[in-house]
Amino acid sequence: MKAGIIGISGYTGLELIRLIQQHPHLEVGTVYSSSMNKKTFQAQFPHLQQPIAPLNLTTFNAQQLMKDNDLLFFATPSGISKDLVAPFVENNFPVIDLSGDLRLKNPELYQKWYQKAPAKIDILRKFEYCLPEWHAPTGNFIANPGCFATAASLALMPLVKDQLIEFSSIVIDAKSGLSGAGKKLADTSHFVNVAENMSMYKVNQHQHIPEIIQFMQKYEKEFNTLQFTTSLIPIKRGIFLSLYAKVAQETNENALYESYLKAYQKQPFVRIQKELPQIRQVLTSNFCDIGLRYNPQTHMVTVVSVIDNLVKGAAGQAIQNFNLWADLESNCGLEQIPIFP
Amino acid sequence: MKAGIIGISGYTGLELIRLIQQHPHLEVGTVYSSSMNKKTFQAQFPHLQQPIAPLNLTTFNAQQLMKDNDLLFFATPSGISKDLVAPFVENNFPVIDLSGDLRLKNPELYQKWYQKAPAKIDILRKFEYCLPEWHAPTGNFIANPGCFATAASLALMPLVKDQLIEFSSIVIDAKSGLSGAGKKLADTSHFVNVAENMSMYKVNQHQHIPEIIQFMQKYEKEFNTLQFTTSLIPIKRGIFLSLYAKVAQETNENALYESYLKAYQKQPFVRIQKELPQIRQVLTSNFCDIGLRYNPQTHMVTVVSVIDNLVKGAAGQAIQNFNLWADLESNCGLEQIPIFP
Amino acid sequence: MKAGIIGISGYTGLELIRLIQQHPHLEVGTVYSSSMNKKTFQAQFPHLQQPIAPLNLTTFNAQQLMKDNDLLFFATPSGISKDLVAPFVENNFPVIDLSGDLRLKNPELYQKWYQKAPAKIDILRKFEYCLPEWHAPTGNFIANPGCFATAASLALMPLVKDQLIEFSSIVIDAKSGLSGAGKKLADTSHFVNVAENMSMYKVNQHQHIPEIIQFMQKYEKEFNTLQFTTSLIPIKRGIFLSLYAKVAQETNENALYESYLKAYQKQPFVRIQKELPQIRQVLTSNFCDIGLRYNPQTHMVTVVSVIDNLVKGAAGQAIQNFNLWADLESNCGLEQIPIFP
Amino acid sequence: MKAGIIGISGYTGLELIRLIQQHPHLEVGTVYSSSMNKKTFQAQFPHLQQPIAPLNLTTFNAQQLMKDNDLLFFATPSGISKDLVAPFVENNFPVIDLSGDLRLKNPELYQKWYQKAPAKIDILRKFEYCLPEWHAPTGNFIANPGCFATAASLALMPLVKDQLIEFSSIVIDAKSGLSGAGKKLADTSHFVNVAENMSMYKVNQHQHIPEIIQFMQKYEKEFNTLQFTTSLIPIKRGIFLSLYAKVAQETNENALYESYLKAYQKQPFVRIQKELPQIRQVLTSNFCDIGLRYNPQTHMVTVVSVIDNLVKGAAGQAIQNFNLWADLESNCGLEQIPIFP
Repeated sequence: MKAGIIGISGYTGLELIRLIQQHPHLEVGTVYSSSMNKKTFQAQFPHLQQPIAPLNLTTFNAQQLMKDNDLLFFATPSGISKDLVAPFVENNFPVIDLSGDLRLKNPELYQKWYQKAPAKIDILRKFEYCLPEWHAPTGNFIANPGCFATAASLALMPLVKDQLIEFSSIVIDAKSGLSGAGKKLADTSHFVNVAENMSMYKVNQHQHIPEIIQFMQKYEKEFNTLQFTTSLIPIKRGIFLSLYAKVAQETNENALYESYLKAYQKQPFVRIQKELPQIRQVLTSNFCDIGLRYNPQTHMVTVVSVIDNLVKGAAGQAIQNFNLWADLESNCGLEQIPIFP
Repeated sequence: MKAGIIGISGYTGLELIRLIQQHPHLEVGTVYSSSMNKKTFQAQFPHLQQPIAPLNLTTFNAQQLMKDNDLLFFATPSGISKDLVAPFVENNFPVIDLSGDLRLKNPELYQKWYQKAPAKIDILRKFEYCLPEWHAPTGNFIANPGCFATAASLALMPLVKDQLIEFSSIVIDAKSGLSGAGKKLADTSHFVNVAENMSMYKVNQHQHIPEIIQFMQKYEKEFNTLQFTTSLIPIKRGIFLSLYAKVAQETNENALYESYLKAYQKQPFVRIQKELPQIRQVLTSNFCDIGLRYNPQTHMVTVVSVIDNLVKGAAGQAIQNFNLWADLESNCGLEQIPIFP
Repeated sequence: MKAGIIGISGYTGLELIRLIQQHPHLEVGTVYSSSMNKKTFQAQFPHLQQPIAPLNLTTFNAQQLMKDNDLLFFATPSGISKDLVAPFVENNFPVIDLSGDLRLKNPELYQKWYQKAPAKIDILRKFEYCLPEWHAPTGNFIANPGCFATAASLALMPLVKDQLIEFSSIVIDAKSGLSGAGKKLADTSHFVNVAENMSMYKVNQHQHIPEIIQFMQKYEKEFNTLQFTTSLIPIKRGIFLSLYAKVAQETNENALYESYLKAYQKQPFVRIQKELPQIRQVLTSNFCDIGLRYNPQTHMVTVVSVIDNLVKGAAGQAIQNFNLWADLESNCGLEQIPIFP
Repeated sequence: MKAGIIGISGYTGLELIRLIQQHPHLEVGTVYSSSMNKKTFQAQFPHLQQPIAPLNLTTFNAQQLMKDNDLLFFATPSGISKDLVAPFVENNFPVIDLSGDLRLKNPELYQKWYQKAPAKIDILRKFEYCLPEWHAPTGNFIANPGCFATAASLALMPLVKDQLIEFSSIVIDAKSGLSGAGKKLADTSHFVNVAENMSMYKVNQHQHIPEIIQFMQKYEKEFNTLQFTTSLIPIKRGIFLSLYAKVAQETNENALYESYLKAYQKQPFVRIQKELPQIRQVLTSNFCDIGLRYNPQTHMVTVVSVIDNLVKGAAGQAIQNFNLWADLESNCGLEQIPIFP
């Protein structure tokens, strides 16, 4: 099958190109960039020079895109795909959207957290939020979860679903590498300001907060708020997420582990491990590794989940969703060993 | 005055040498290393080659050390100074101990958290735990706080003292650069395992936990436990500490800030700032910068405190304690601008 | 076909495992480690945990290894394979050696540069030094080039072969990431000593010098010496090699480029590009990217070649040699897009 | 004395502020920024918040600047100070210019290498190029050398002056941290493009080339060209410069060392050492550490010199020049121990 990609100049689009090349049943069809032409693209991304097959850049023509491809990935910044997907939705042409535009069911929440006009309600209704370990696609329109939301929801769900923790006590302290902040030039991404530094940003204001709450509410209605902060650490890729919560009743580490093992035993990409995981063990792969510790003094559980923000947190998960949509094995084309060192 | 240094091959000893050189009323007297002689020291630390004045390495002879110096800094690993300080205590010769040996008043706690035999009780009783913003030295024997304990206690104290938070809800997620883990060669400090990585260690087992609790208990008896984790991030120096807690009663950001401004208004090294601080703004300096955010949805406050683990977290604070002991200004010799970039 | 691997605890062995997993005609057979058992291996390399297929660790039994595998890769440190390969050579069982043991034809050179006893002369004679762009395997015993030698020889050959430069003027200034220095714990690999630093090592003494000279002499007898230095830069992977030389007679940039384009036009892994290449454009891939500049004032050419030291500089090139040995396409299983960012 | 600073938003201006604060006979007078006001300055540089004394920002009024200060440092980008210095030159008011505007005596060279209109010839004539180890200021107008030029000239001079090498064989391969490329936002300074990477830039076109040649010609007329390249390595500060040259006649390492020891024996900031120096041993200090190796096979000498580009390569050297101009000791206020780790 041929996958068109809308938005190839960002890290997510580039990662889609890399991963699709390794997929046995998928190839890159035509691609579109609003900011780059063939020449500027090649100049900025010399890693893609020949003999790697050149990309087939095209204009944004919905009819032509549907003719040239079997499905489309939207790897655009927020605020773009909500409008651009309209003709494809009308034609029931498969779309996997990696932006945040079509994740929140409540348009007011989008308006509030993204500070932008939301998608039209009839488009919003057609899209399914698919964190594939918990909800596989059933139709042609997939909203792919955000990177932090993926690491957070996979860590939270066993505890929330099995009602093992007090929701109001949850604290998530998430850290991300710089690719999570995108390619945009800013003081905060200048090497000199990032190296030998760490900083917190968008405290209590990160747009993945309502996405996580919405997803938890599918299982637990009373999950209404979330203490969630994000920081930048001086690495290129990777998310390290620490989750703390009071347990609902006295327990032990093994019992907590059981909940995770049960939840993910059939999932090829979530690895529950006895040692707390480190970022390096999942880099460039679609794995989410999770470990935990219980503290009987504070009655709190500490859960650590790590992902590669560009793979399990974006392009890899989108392909995982594609696999499920196409009735392939969940891990088809995604089984590469993480890069180490 | 002349300061002898016991233990100069570790990062803390080196930092003492660097900072003392800039102090108007202090100079390095004789120094002692159990592992290095003049030749191996010079080979390993070429930054100290001449014309920087060579160190006066000596053997460990208590009588001679007291003759050649006006006070001693112990910059040894844990388990060493508890025995070595004996003759100096007997002679009422001033000692500032930077190790963890003489911080915990309860010898059983030392045994439990350090897994080593504690100091003798009469020695322990003579040492004062001096976080100078809250407790200045009154005698000749100073136990200098640990790096994480410094960042944590400075962030906690206003909230704890003013009873603004629920103690049982506190979560501290602290991150440190690799110098915090010392010079020892280990897989966990190999460049290839640290770069592009982040890892959590000693979860619920870090030896600074009882030190923080003991200090809080001076002000609030019921402060009995602490949820506290430490992680390594790929930087050389610096601590970034995130503190989360439920407020005791509904409040707002300004009210919380007031508590900090009041607590530290006369302190030259604690800077309360409106923007959340980043590690880079305190590197190589004795500053502890603190900022906070209040989340009315979760009723939680997020406090960020940053220090240089080798300065405010070790050698700088030891000199600050020296200044107070010697009736100098707290910031004497410690006013250098942080290195940036 | 099944490939056994001798030495899986080093970076090169790990990289073989990663790359073979992606190869359509090769799978990992049995593996051997002198230092690790299954348990310690899993503890140290959590990226390889299940569902990634567990390794089949075995003892070192030559008969059994030949029974269980179709060929063997030796990814051992220098000084090991020269002895261990004996039974396989006797049985004409295919071996690809990634260490330096079997590269130098002159045993005295090995003795001098490696400071170890050389391989037996009859074993040495059976091994072919295969830099596949210039010499493909013709028999069952392949000595895989060193990482620096690969980057250097690919950059040098067009100029040397076409006699475009004065040999005595050549200067090579090569830089490598830390994985090039191996897993061994040393002060020089401690994060704190590597970050924000750069250092030169083994000046005029690097063991790849005689290997490069030997290879050049195949084409130009009078190529007798080489000014060659190596430095460590604070990255995990990658070699950045700068080559300078006086041109033999006045020329221009295009003419020099022609020589490279001609030499490598049929080679899938050497990419000649107009912009000088950067390390990041080849990371995790088998590409060697080369660019050059001519300076008419100094009559010198500057050539930059970049490789991933663990792929084109080790495991990837070994598989490339395997492909040629097995009559597969040179790039079979090695076409993945470099990781970026 | 009071030093005014023109241009405080760049790394060089910030470093002047930091270093002047530590100087016993110098303090910051009024400062000027064309791009920042007090508020934006404080927001971008939180390391300078109180109790560090706030800066006295002023407008650019030549009369007022001369009234409020005893001398001026210009820490502006190239193309600015050449015009701005005019009123001060007219009034014989002391100026130390850290930009490249007033270094090249030949205005055509400036035009060619900087691609900008040069300073007026009468202004140019008044400025002295002061690499203080070789030429101390004799008047009120000092052109402070460039960072690469400093590291290069200090490494070259003993060899050139003592005629120990063949000039036409010289190759300089210099590497710099990102602060050398300035604060400007560009793809090449984005963290994701710098980390785990190395790249060469301005090959044969770096504007420090004519500056080095001009300086060498003061001592050796026939020094006409220089093979010189610059690369970026993923560190914040520091230059690592490798110099290669054929010796003029057969020699040995000790003889070469003698030339350096003799040249710099009275200089407090140039440290000649037996081990090749690393960047980390000079960071944040005004030292230039130099080591060398001789290769009797290639008849080439390898010299390594390291500096902190912002200190010895800019602000520190400017203060060193000030010291000499003010008849103070060369190292007055500049004796701090390098930061390590």
